[in-house]
Amino acid sequence: MLATLMYGAGDVRVEDVPDARLAEPTDALVRVTSACICGSDLWPYKTMAEDPHGRRMGHEFVGIVEDVGRHVERVRRGDLVVAPFVFSDGSCGFCAEGLHTSCTHGGFWGSDGVDGGQGEAVRVPQADGTLVVLPVAPDDALMPSLLTLSDVFATGHHAAVCARVTPGDTVAVVGDGAVGLCGVLAARRLGADRIIILGRHRDRTDLAREFGATDVVAERGEAAVERVHELTDGAGAHSVLECVGLEDAFKTAVGVARPGGTIGRVGVPQFESLPAARDTFLRNVTVSGGIAPARAYIPELLPDVLEGRLQPGRVFDRTVGLDGVPDGYRAMDERESIKVMVNP
Amino acid sequence: MLATLMYGAGDVRVEDVPDARLAEPTDALVRVTSACICGSDLWPYKTMAEDPHGRRMGHEFVGIVEDVGRHVERVRRGDLVVAPFVFSDGSCGFCAEGLHTSCTHGGFWGSDGVDGGQGEAVRVPQADGTLVVLPVAPDDALMPSLLTLSDVFATGHHAAVCARVTPGDTVAVVGDGAVGLCGVLAARRLGADRIIILGRHRDRTDLAREFGATDVVAERGEAAVERVHELTDGAGAHSVLECVGLEDAFKTAVGVARPGGTIGRVGVPQFESLPAARDTFLRNVTVSGGIAPARAYIPELLPDVLEGRLQPGRVFDRTVGLDGVPDGYRAMDERESIKVMVNP
Repeated sequence: MLATLMYGAGDVRVEDVPDARLAEPTDALVRVTSACICGSDLWPYKTMAEDPHGRRMGHEFVGIVEDVGRHVERVRRGDLVVAPFVFSDGSCGFCAEGLHTSCTHGGFWGSDGVDGGQGEAVRVPQADGTLVVLPVAPDDALMPSLLTLSDVFATGHHAAVCARVTPGDTVAVVGDGAVGLCGVLAARRLGADRIIILGRHRDRTDLAREFGATDVVAERGEAAVERVHELTDGAGAHSVLECVGLEDAFKTAVGVARPGGTIGRVGVPQFESLPAARDTFLRNVTVSGGIAPARAYIPELLPDVLEGRLQPGRVFDRTVGLDGVPDGYRAMDERESIKVMVNP
Repeated sequence: MLATLMYGAGDVRVEDVPDARLAEPTDALVRVTSACICGSDLWPYKTMAEDPHGRRMGHEFVGIVEDVGRHVERVRRGDLVVAPFVFSDGSCGFCAEGLHTSCTHGGFWGSDGVDGGQGEAVRVPQADGTLVVLPVAPDDALMPSLLTLSDVFATGHHAAVCARVTPGDTVAVVGDGAVGLCGVLAARRLGADRIIILGRHRDRTDLAREFGATDVVAERGEAAVERVHELTDGAGAHSVLECVGLEDAFKTAVGVARPGGTIGRVGVPQFESLPAARDTFLRNVTVSGGIAPARAYIPELLPDVLEGRLQPGRVFDRTVGLDGVPDGYRAMDERESIKVMVNP
């Protein structure tokens, strides 16, 4: 079958790999109908050291179940399913707490003999715990939005939950990538009154406004912090969604946080230490967030997508086949595209 | 009047200073009856650069109101009052949110023309918002415990609140100083089931056990992290109270935190950046806490102290007069004493 591999920075190839097949009785075999490229895939795309074996890519996908292991009970052949970006057993203590990303039997797509999502098919470990059945056909018009439940919308939602967005809040969203845009949508969904997005790309901030942003701050760094303070009577935002993962973005998040406020960070940190240990201490700014337990959120978010109230799929502005994946990486890396959908 | 000044590391003197007096119509003049030395006073005691003008010291005190400005309404001459370690107006937006440490008219004792608590008397700005009247006499046997409401018990409580201690939780407390001990007491008060204190001083950990600690971990660093994992089925603690303020203590706090857990940090950070930006991200460990809004907590904690259910005052193991203050600093710095009470 065909699958996407990354061999180093800037080097993405679609190649023949061994067919996905069941290995454990708890596995399912899923034929991918829709996948996508993640902003987090761009970090290795920028920096990955050369690896002659390549790394299997993709962790967001929707597909049809082709086969299941003998211990699989909840998922059946022919089901259309969405996979969260971490697989999990759904039954351990962490899953019970809603932290499926720390599942004791969980793991990541594309490593340790597990396929990646940017390919024709995937062996899904812990299928009963991992997959969520979608009550639509694979060509449903809702597919882009349903696919975002796999990661990007769930991650924006996690940022908002961790930042403790509550009705009436003033929220700042740092970053106008697909996650930031979904963060705006999630903050609005949780009742935020005012949503300030910090971003410089007009096409993206325009979409942010359609998603519910009330203000756009195009400045960066100290100037952005000043501007947010001007917009908030000098106080800053109760809840800050850090959707980038760079140290400067985190510093901006701290700067725009109101004393007593909370940062929900979902940008994969490209730095070792969180700056401003004293500033956050003196102002009681909480730093929360992390890798989003998408599996925990899908049941909560699904109805709003199925019933058309929210359209997170609007973050996709390009669709390619598998052969278009390498150029999709390039387009996202060069900010020519917000997010690329892949229909194998 | 006499007051305590620090002129540099290790150089504490009790000297004549101008008498405290009313300056603003919102001031009260308080004659100090009990004060104390704080663990945070030891940071400048270890590191302060020489300052020929000296720095007025002390931010925890109980005293009798001798005079009030014409706008003071809630506090009257003759009242016995406890002062939180930050003064605040009690009426701004932050005070309304319970974050009196970020009060728009607030400030710290001992700077900007405001007296310190380790002296004979103090001008108290924003007296109505700051002071809490105590319904006892200054020589009441409860005085040590009432004095801890000023900072150390309120700070231990803040650590527990920020670490989201809830009934049934497993809690780890990093540090066996007076704040850590009060953190144990606060965690027990909030219903923690298991409380593991990390500390190496037997006299302190013995008191921790009396305060409610169920386990003592005397190891440090990686060994301490391993030991806590052994005690918690490999998972770690839901809530971690970081009561030291050193980078190694913070690293330990991260290490013993369960995925999805929360660190409540109240040790004044003696470092610039919070380590483990990626580890906390991957495990969704929240970092909360900061300078404790003691004023917000006093009304909640006071009944338990007044009715004798909690005795945080047991952290005091030495009492001195003003002339004994310099030696009190030495004794605390050399860990000869947990916490020193000062009766001017």
